[in-house]
Amino acid sequence: MNSPRQAYRLSEIVKRFGGELLGDGNVSIAQVATLEAAGPGQISFFANSRYRKQLEQTRADAIILTSEAASSTQRPRIVCKDPYAYFARLSALLNPPGAVVPGIHRFAAIHPTAVVAASACIGPFTSIGAGAEVGEGSLIEAGCAVGDNVRIGRDCRLYSGVSIYHDCIVGDRVILHSGVIIGADGFGIAWEAGRWHKIPQIGRVLLGDDVEVGANTTIDRGALDDTVIEEGVKLDNQIQIGHNCRIGAHTAMAGCVGVAGSTRIGRYCRIGGSAMIGGHLEIADHVEISGATGVSKSIPRAGTYTSLFPMSLHKDWLRNASHIRHLDSLAARVRELEIRLAELEGKKNE
Amino acid sequence: MNSPRQAYRLSEIVKRFGGELLGDGNVSIAQVATLEAAGPGQISFFANSRYRKQLEQTRADAIILTSEAASSTQRPRIVCKDPYAYFARLSALLNPPGAVVPGIHRFAAIHPTAVVAASACIGPFTSIGAGAEVGEGSLIEAGCAVGDNVRIGRDCRLYSGVSIYHDCIVGDRVILHSGVIIGADGFGIAWEAGRWHKIPQIGRVLLGDDVEVGANTTIDRGALDDTVIEEGVKLDNQIQIGHNCRIGAHTAMAGCVGVAGSTRIGRYCRIGGSAMIGGHLEIADHVEISGATGVSKSIPRAGTYTSLFPMSLHKDWLRNASHIRHLDSLAARVRELEIRLAELEGKKNE
Amino acid sequence: MNSPRQAYRLSEIVKRFGGELLGDGNVSIAQVATLEAAGPGQISFFANSRYRKQLEQTRADAIILTSEAASSTQRPRIVCKDPYAYFARLSALLNPPGAVVPGIHRFAAIHPTAVVAASACIGPFTSIGAGAEVGEGSLIEAGCAVGDNVRIGRDCRLYSGVSIYHDCIVGDRVILHSGVIIGADGFGIAWEAGRWHKIPQIGRVLLGDDVEVGANTTIDRGALDDTVIEEGVKLDNQIQIGHNCRIGAHTAMAGCVGVAGSTRIGRYCRIGGSAMIGGHLEIADHVEISGATGVSKSIPRAGTYTSLFPMSLHKDWLRNASHIRHLDSLAARVRELEIRLAELEGKKNE
Repeated sequence: MNSPRQAYRLSEIVKRFGGELLGDGNVSIAQVATLEAAGPGQISFFANSRYRKQLEQTRADAIILTSEAASSTQRPRIVCKDPYAYFARLSALLNPPGAVVPGIHRFAAIHPTAVVAASACIGPFTSIGAGAEVGEGSLIEAGCAVGDNVRIGRDCRLYSGVSIYHDCIVGDRVILHSGVIIGADGFGIAWEAGRWHKIPQIGRVLLGDDVEVGANTTIDRGALDDTVIEEGVKLDNQIQIGHNCRIGAHTAMAGCVGVAGSTRIGRYCRIGGSAMIGGHLEIADHVEISGATGVSKSIPRAGTYTSLFPMSLHKDWLRNASHIRHLDSLAARVRELEIRLAELEGKKNE
Repeated sequence: MNSPRQAYRLSEIVKRFGGELLGDGNVSIAQVATLEAAGPGQISFFANSRYRKQLEQTRADAIILTSEAASSTQRPRIVCKDPYAYFARLSALLNPPGAVVPGIHRFAAIHPTAVVAASACIGPFTSIGAGAEVGEGSLIEAGCAVGDNVRIGRDCRLYSGVSIYHDCIVGDRVILHSGVIIGADGFGIAWEAGRWHKIPQIGRVLLGDDVEVGANTTIDRGALDDTVIEEGVKLDNQIQIGHNCRIGAHTAMAGCVGVAGSTRIGRYCRIGGSAMIGGHLEIADHVEISGATGVSKSIPRAGTYTSLFPMSLHKDWLRNASHIRHLDSLAARVRELEIRLAELEGKKNE
Repeated sequence: MNSPRQAYRLSEIVKRFGGELLGDGNVSIAQVATLEAAGPGQISFFANSRYRKQLEQTRADAIILTSEAASSTQRPRIVCKDPYAYFARLSALLNPPGAVVPGIHRFAAIHPTAVVAASACIGPFTSIGAGAEVGEGSLIEAGCAVGDNVRIGRDCRLYSGVSIYHDCIVGDRVILHSGVIIGADGFGIAWEAGRWHKIPQIGRVLLGDDVEVGANTTIDRGALDDTVIEEGVKLDNQIQIGHNCRIGAHTAMAGCVGVAGSTRIGRYCRIGGSAMIGGHLEIADHVEISGATGVSKSIPRAGTYTSLFPMSLHKDWLRNASHIRHLDSLAARVRELEIRLAELEGKKNE
């Protein structure tokens, strides 16, 4: 685990982040932990009544909780409206990212026309192409490939093994995890004379500020215009974003989502894991898509949308699923029953 | 964006690619663009009546369109049967791939027994194994790993971070995007005595000529025989092809498709994004699979196949989906109603 | 293909692995092959009656089969209970992994405080971080990045392009294929004041002994506690394991599976390709999940579970699937028919 560099007294924490302190403000906190695992010098949080038993048994030196739960423990505690968000901020304080040691590794390949800021760090086996720029404080770890004319902003972090194709633009404070591929060719092919012909992909990828992209996620460059990921978007691992997509600011996607080309997703959306979103669609702001949902039509209104086939024991599935292929006929039979029954009821009442 | 190296007059373009020229043939075209974004020196295409408004408002210097649409604009234009395919060929002319500068980077690791053609280019941090061959004009970018005895044909392009395991064969003019893994072990395990035993994967991967493979796609080597991707196959990003599969010539697959082991897919198929194709299946030529479709049986006949659960608002989904688990019972109840009603109708008519 | 280093007589093989030998024990076997492809010096196996024709026509020098099938051929043969498992063991004998040549490539970057065992091999363009350890006999191929304080056990194999983030622990005899990412940050974000805030991921990933991980699979580090993959787990390609998951010993997952965070999967489970398993679930031991199944609830009992929408021709799908959105209403109409019919039947019998 990270070695936290500094401990803070509860009174200091409350002074910094707000909230009401109950109990001894001199308790010193060096790390966050779960209710179950926490021990001396550690703080935990309680935000879900399912964990009441763990709260009772915790050995954490302090707890973050709501006013409703404030009397559930006598340990030192910070009372606030949103314990999880409070915990997030406190954890960020206790676990700062490692300092970036400026410099270029002797096993790096920097093109003479590239501009690497003096405070940036370039790891071993990383190449930086012609005309590329790396901003102040940015860290590019081992084995990355930054293409010609790529611009990377300030205070970014590229973990090992990231590839960025030529001409793409990366904002400030962007995090790209290992295996991320930015700007590979979109899937643009035209059928003619019995074979596929490749269409040059001459757009770019633009990543806004504060974007984070998970391991092995791929974002294709635009065919003609650019693929755009707006500021604050958070993408989990193994997501595929097709060419010409636009993902609105502050939208978050869980792992394994696929978004086909030319689809526009709004701001503040939340896309569940393994969802599949078809091409050339428009998804409104504030839309929530459940995990494993297939989206094949545009969604013009905010709301939560789902398309999961309910799971069951395989033998029950065999029995029930076979009827799916005859639903139209079943519905027609019900309609016919209704007509015949109405006729009979009519005769009966004659 | 790419800097196009050369401009062409419309008259030259028509001379080269055919089509009927309407308007000033001296107009000089340097780049392709969308109707919306095009400006001076740029040509666009009109192939879908949804974009009629953009056609009216475009500032493109020329348009590619069909004879039906030829009178929809007075701008210089090329009339042809398939504007999209025409556009694809023209874009390829205007955006040629960068010239390959022959040579081996000083930070490359080439085994003494490997044979790299004089006109090939090997980037930094790339390793080429014992007995491997790289053909004339091929470009292998930074950070690739080419295993022992791999053969790569002429005029191929491997983007940064491609891995090819030992003994695999790559045809001519093959494009492998970043993060592609060719020839990793197939998922071959046998259960015995309470644990899994690994089965050596001794087949290879064979990639035909003109294959393109998208970023982070993986194609496993065969268990005993080879995994074969025939000529002209186009694979998008994050596709997984299991061991012993054969993908027929000129088949195209969109992103995130999974194909389990030993399945044979025919020629000229089109597989939609996130489709899942089970193992040991046979898919005929010219089959089209919709996005997000699960294929668990062989498909002996051409056609379009789908298995998507229709998306709805989550609250509607909750209400409707629960009945899936009782469809068999619902169908039985309808059958019983039919019998009882027929009986009643019979009595009625007595 | 691998060059098998040694041939074995059938009598030697039976002496080593058991089974009953029928026919000439002096036949020399150098390699395994399918019934169809096998030739001189090769042995095949027969475990599925679908391949009876191939058995009749095979040119294999020997066959592994069950006692029930023993008389189906007159070729030299080994009779045993489980021909596939026998074949697996024999193939492992005939195709041993290449010997690891100890040493550190001149283009490797080993931190001075890292400890690499004398019998380990570190390939070109691989970096080993501060305080990291690589055990005896382990091979780390080209272009891997091993983070600070990572511990890798004995006799492991990391293929080219593997990244392991800081502090993760890898057991003995672990195989990680190209593009595997171990220990990237889990998807931990908290919403506050109109934007997402990153939650530091301070747990690790622990990989047990004899784990194998397929190409481009990603396993995220824990948010607070560790993500744990127990011994003998086999993961295929392009799987995503979220933070804090625990995968029980000897569970196997096929390609493209996604497991969301904090889910615990039992021992001896088998998860089909492209299955999606939601977060915070508990899956019992010995559970089998069919391919492309979405799991959104815990599964407390062993069994086989499925949620696949049945595939059909697209035009049939259009006709049938539309009724899914009205199933609740259809079920209500059937209920009403039942009531009305019962009433009518009652009157009839009055």
